[in-house]
Amino acid sequence: MTHDIGFIGLGNMGGPMAANLVRAGHRVTGYDLVPEALRQAEEVGVRPARSAAEAVRGADVVISMLPAGRHVLAAYAELLPAAGPGTLFVDCSTIDVADARAAHELAVTAGHRAVDAPVSGGVVGATAASLTFMVGAEKEHFESARPVLEEMGRKVVHCGAPGAGQAAKICNNMILGISMIAVSEAFVLGESLGLSHQALFDVASTASGQCWALTSNCPVPGPVPASPANRGYPAGFAAALMAKDLGLAAGAAEAAGLPTELGRRAAQLYADFAAAEGAGLDFSAIITTLREGGK
Amino acid sequence: MTHDIGFIGLGNMGGPMAANLVRAGHRVTGYDLVPEALRQAEEVGVRPARSAAEAVRGADVVISMLPAGRHVLAAYAELLPAAGPGTLFVDCSTIDVADARAAHELAVTAGHRAVDAPVSGGVVGATAASLTFMVGAEKEHFESARPVLEEMGRKVVHCGAPGAGQAAKICNNMILGISMIAVSEAFVLGESLGLSHQALFDVASTASGQCWALTSNCPVPGPVPASPANRGYPAGFAAALMAKDLGLAAGAAEAAGLPTELGRRAAQLYADFAAAEGAGLDFSAIITTLREGGK
Repeated sequence: MTHDIGFIGLGNMGGPMAANLVRAGHRVTGYDLVPEALRQAEEVGVRPARSAAEAVRGADVVISMLPAGRHVLAAYAELLPAAGPGTLFVDCSTIDVADARAAHELAVTAGHRAVDAPVSGGVVGATAASLTFMVGAEKEHFESARPVLEEMGRKVVHCGAPGAGQAAKICNNMILGISMIAVSEAFVLGESLGLSHQALFDVASTASGQCWALTSNCPVPGPVPASPANRGYPAGFAAALMAKDLGLAAGAAEAAGLPTELGRRAAQLYADFAAAEGAGLDFSAIITTLREGGK
Repeated sequence: MTHDIGFIGLGNMGGPMAANLVRAGHRVTGYDLVPEALRQAEEVGVRPARSAAEAVRGADVVISMLPAGRHVLAAYAELLPAAGPGTLFVDCSTIDVADARAAHELAVTAGHRAVDAPVSGGVVGATAASLTFMVGAEKEHFESARPVLEEMGRKVVHCGAPGAGQAAKICNNMILGISMIAVSEAFVLGESLGLSHQALFDVASTASGQCWALTSNCPVPGPVPASPANRGYPAGFAAALMAKDLGLAAGAAEAAGLPTELGRRAAQLYADFAAAEGAGLDFSAIITTLREGGK
């Protein structure tokens, strides 16, 4: 089934996602505040709109990929009145759960359908159409969104009611962010004890220390040839984005009165690293800061 | 090849390990300060000695399984002069790396060979002879110890020079201890956001949040039927032992001037939990303390 899709936000992620929708045969009209992003999207077959409202006029599906909750809420204020009745709004941005629920509520009140569908997989996954989508939606709206999401990704998971997609993403990334620091602390401690990186990897990767951070994105060069550590830590998953996601998790925990102590401390460590020098590096480069003080 | 083995420390771990050596056809003479432990070992074919020194007389291999470094050093002071020249000392206790190196040095100075070979796998692994041994030793001494260790375990890994076995164990367990708290914080945060345990498990177990703590020892009931959470958290790996191992890691980091912030905070959380109520529970029961403050 071919859709008329309005696509809002054609940056590093949204650009290649929109290109994959064009490739799948959909009619995609796009908008971005940055003229260069709009021009690049046009090159791959996206029809450029002069405003966000123009991009959604006549669309039956609207997809947004924006930096933060305030951008999504501002965009929805403009888009919801401009879209035809019953349009399916799919927000792929990673934003606060409360903002995601507010956006859903606004859309429903305006007579539309809405799902939150944040992604994992980064620019590489967006380009290769191998993203994972974590979807918060009523069951029938999930089923409506699924075929379109499958054109941009490899895995589409229904996580629960509206907001649950955002919740799953920040909870997963909190585990990831903490476990990367755990793995890094272990390598650094091992170094001080004369334990080689390879020996620790050989033990932990097949024992109870096994985790994705170790076995797929190993923060030291050597044991996992594909990991960014072997090439000076190109992102991958940038430390600035990990800091953002852990910040969202910390904010949600704060609102719920939960300590999530390690999650909050990890948020601070990535934020400090991103502010100092690491913003554009892979988040596994956090290990380079953990040797400080060692003797 | 059949050995005359002296076995020092016949408790929850040492008892079944010694029994497996008897079953493999070795002559095992054992000693424990606790008469009941000695009596139980006798029932499975261990010859009881009246002192540690008597247990090692005539042995070509001496295995120790004791609670802490001070016990190992005290035992070695008594055992090294009593053993025949060139005896192979295998310490399976989990102790400080510095103590392990000191014990090795004492043994070598007394004309013996020595390896450190701490285990993972717990009482279940000790009974089923499915332990993993992490061995610090010169290569030839590792090869001498390997056949005996293989009678008690499924996997025997050479981690490096003397002390490296202990280093690998505490580094692995530091990753494990931290990642269990990470997983627990994520489940608790997910609860507050209306995300079901199963939905978070389904996302994270196949994504970048995947880790042994989640997929093999899941701290909430449901997703992993074999995990202790489904049966009121019987240990498994007791919180008190996790607190001990993370304490060793924190001590080693302190000595090296390394922050290992998350490792130290995790050590404190497990120590507090063990002191309060959790000592004998599986370490995954730490999740029950992480909901405090939630609203």
